[in-house]
Amino acid sequence: MSVINRLNSSDQGFDEQLTQLLAYDEAQDSQIESAVSEILANVREHGDAAVVEYSRKFDGVSAEHMAELEVSNEACEAALAALPQEQRDALTQAAKRICAYHERQKSTGWTYEEEDGTVLGVKVTPMDRVGLYVPGGKAAYPSSVLMNAIPAKVAGVGEVVMVTPTPGGEQNPIVLAAAAVAGVDRVLTIGGAQAVAALAYGTESIAQVDKIVGPGNAYVAEAKRRVFGVVGIDMIAGPSEILIICDGKTPAEWIAMDLFSQAEHDELAQAILLCPDAAYLDEVEASIKRLLPEMSRKAIISTSLANRGALIQVRDLDEACDIANHIAAEHLEISVQEPQPLVDRIRHAGAIFIGPYSSESLGDYCAGTNHVLPTSRTARFSSPLGVYDFEKRSSLINISKRGADTLGRIASTLAYGEGLQAHAKSAEYRYKN
Amino acid sequence: MSVINRLNSSDQGFDEQLTQLLAYDEAQDSQIESAVSEILANVREHGDAAVVEYSRKFDGVSAEHMAELEVSNEACEAALAALPQEQRDALTQAAKRICAYHERQKSTGWTYEEEDGTVLGVKVTPMDRVGLYVPGGKAAYPSSVLMNAIPAKVAGVGEVVMVTPTPGGEQNPIVLAAAAVAGVDRVLTIGGAQAVAALAYGTESIAQVDKIVGPGNAYVAEAKRRVFGVVGIDMIAGPSEILIICDGKTPAEWIAMDLFSQAEHDELAQAILLCPDAAYLDEVEASIKRLLPEMSRKAIISTSLANRGALIQVRDLDEACDIANHIAAEHLEISVQEPQPLVDRIRHAGAIFIGPYSSESLGDYCAGTNHVLPTSRTARFSSPLGVYDFEKRSSLINISKRGADTLGRIASTLAYGEGLQAHAKSAEYRYKN
Repeated sequence: MSVINRLNSSDQGFDEQLTQLLAYDEAQDSQIESAVSEILANVREHGDAAVVEYSRKFDGVSAEHMAELEVSNEACEAALAALPQEQRDALTQAAKRICAYHERQKSTGWTYEEEDGTVLGVKVTPMDRVGLYVPGGKAAYPSSVLMNAIPAKVAGVGEVVMVTPTPGGEQNPIVLAAAAVAGVDRVLTIGGAQAVAALAYGTESIAQVDKIVGPGNAYVAEAKRRVFGVVGIDMIAGPSEILIICDGKTPAEWIAMDLFSQAEHDELAQAILLCPDAAYLDEVEASIKRLLPEMSRKAIISTSLANRGALIQVRDLDEACDIANHIAAEHLEISVQEPQPLVDRIRHAGAIFIGPYSSESLGDYCAGTNHVLPTSRTARFSSPLGVYDFEKRSSLINISKRGADTLGRIASTLAYGEGLQAHAKSAEYRYKN
Repeated sequence: MSVINRLNSSDQGFDEQLTQLLAYDEAQDSQIESAVSEILANVREHGDAAVVEYSRKFDGVSAEHMAELEVSNEACEAALAALPQEQRDALTQAAKRICAYHERQKSTGWTYEEEDGTVLGVKVTPMDRVGLYVPGGKAAYPSSVLMNAIPAKVAGVGEVVMVTPTPGGEQNPIVLAAAAVAGVDRVLTIGGAQAVAALAYGTESIAQVDKIVGPGNAYVAEAKRRVFGVVGIDMIAGPSEILIICDGKTPAEWIAMDLFSQAEHDELAQAILLCPDAAYLDEVEASIKRLLPEMSRKAIISTSLANRGALIQVRDLDEACDIANHIAAEHLEISVQEPQPLVDRIRHAGAIFIGPYSSESLGDYCAGTNHVLPTSRTARFSSPLGVYDFEKRSSLINISKRGADTLGRIASTLAYGEGLQAHAKSAEYRYKN
């Protein structure tokens, strides 16, 4: 098996090869579906007691009451203070940049008045309370705490409640420190479908939230899918992906390491390079072979690259953009000397990293943009997590007496056309009386 | 049984009474779940053939090929031309106003440059292709075609594909006319879970869409829930609601008819009035009794009002706002002489109708705002359907050489903290080499 797949867009059968490479189907497991359904029903009925019981069972914690599963703000602040200076500074600087970028996403309401005095518009308000799921164990990323909590706080959400499981009762101090930096209001060491249920329905000690965000395992994803409608949820994330368009002028090692930085996430992560220059693709392949043995996560990287990675020779950079629009990647690096014309051609991508200095890893941590991005081609219809995900709009309709006359007649005609007499009469009262 | 429930916020047990009144639980029916799961799998595997077969079976159509289930643009234009002049004008004027309001919702991208030359920003793009579900039979509302299709067209969506079942092969000419007015690009007379599957996965003759919007029955709702992630979906709508805050100065008959206009939708619709004036509530109740026998949908209205409607006496208008924020109604009428202070206090509502002339029915048809609104308390976290539902964002990150130095050091520290060596090295290459 080669270290990474090699494809050529001019080959017959390329479209099928690409489709096969991209194929990723989240199996809906009926056993998970029924387990989650039962957990949700139990927590809804028995509240705190059910959550504590599931935490004892699944996480092996010894708590007997919900209060023991709460981490105080003081404990989070202490975790922050105890970090090595360099790490604390990095976390604080990253948070500051994320805040600065997200401040620009805030929406404001607007109104306009029509000739007859009718005023129409929109009012924008933040949600009252939001739940943030943070996975426990190996996938516990402090950077994700910042990326999920800061947009909510910038939006003006009143209370951000973080839940994170602590298998065996072991807390992750950097995650707690990140909660302090991000201004998380409350931290509970619960996880799984039971934590999602507690946030969605509320219990004696946990108030119902309006939305739940953050990644989790298959049980958490299924629980979020099921409570959608009772509360809002964010996208259900698939494996992470990077797509790089390169003109062959960026040092090959940089590109190889960028591919690694995606592949090291997990075996299902996808890393693809598009380049018109076959010799450059050889060079990247050689760099991959040379650098791989040095990598601490080389087992994951090599599986990911061999199964789901690819170096693809394209006709030209225009064709690369067409393929990129089809793939609609989570992360798209445009590593070329003259990037702007290519950026203009891109319609679908979660985040676009422009020019050779913009490695994805900078966006993952501290550029300021959000690292929660649409995966598995969902950039066709969805956006990076942002302040807008924690705001909602209310339409404003203030009809003048004259407006009620003009509009009432239109509404009445259309209402009778739909067989809705009360709709028609309600409009007519305003101009006939 | 009384014509409508009477409650008083000062009574003991009011909170429980209100909770019970608002309770609405969409049962998840496992029989529907498995039927839909099978339909989705079949359409995904067999494409057009499966869609045609299901349409023959469920809608009783005689078609043998997908082509027979397509309605040409010419046929839609002909349906529009054949409408009575008054109806055609009303439809056109409503569409014009809906366009005008929604034009103001368009987002534009932005960028900003930092001191070291790093540029950050966002790019906004419309979706390529959107599916619009329009129910057949009694719930086929031409106004909904306008409300769903116009925001997509204003956003710049390339192709809007409308699907609508035609039980027994019978087409609804006003719905086809509305499709012509709204600029729908393609109309297919298919429905149910099979139509959702065709749009979500694509078939030989139907290209995969990026998002599916529009209401449907329990099968359609379950199908949308299941394809969420493959495509985007809008909210899954519950029964419609109106909440009216009145100071007792609006003619009681107007308010009674506004309550009817919601109740006539279906037996589960909810109509609630909040007012501090007991005598006025009596007057509204008397109007309800007097007007009800004249209504063509009186059976539906009386069931809805008796089971789910209420006239609630509140202490004052401030308390009315608190209750309104708790209910987070789809439609909120603030029918008072001095509405602005109340509007300012409202945090959660789909649409706010301000002042006595702003009946909900004007918003349903032609005020210009959207009538697709969050139901069942989901206004806590979601917004009216809008242009923003058909746009998506891509983050723009263009890091300068100097920026790669400053930011690379932060990213490297945080990446090592998360055990992600390749992330760290990918950042380091940009400042070490």
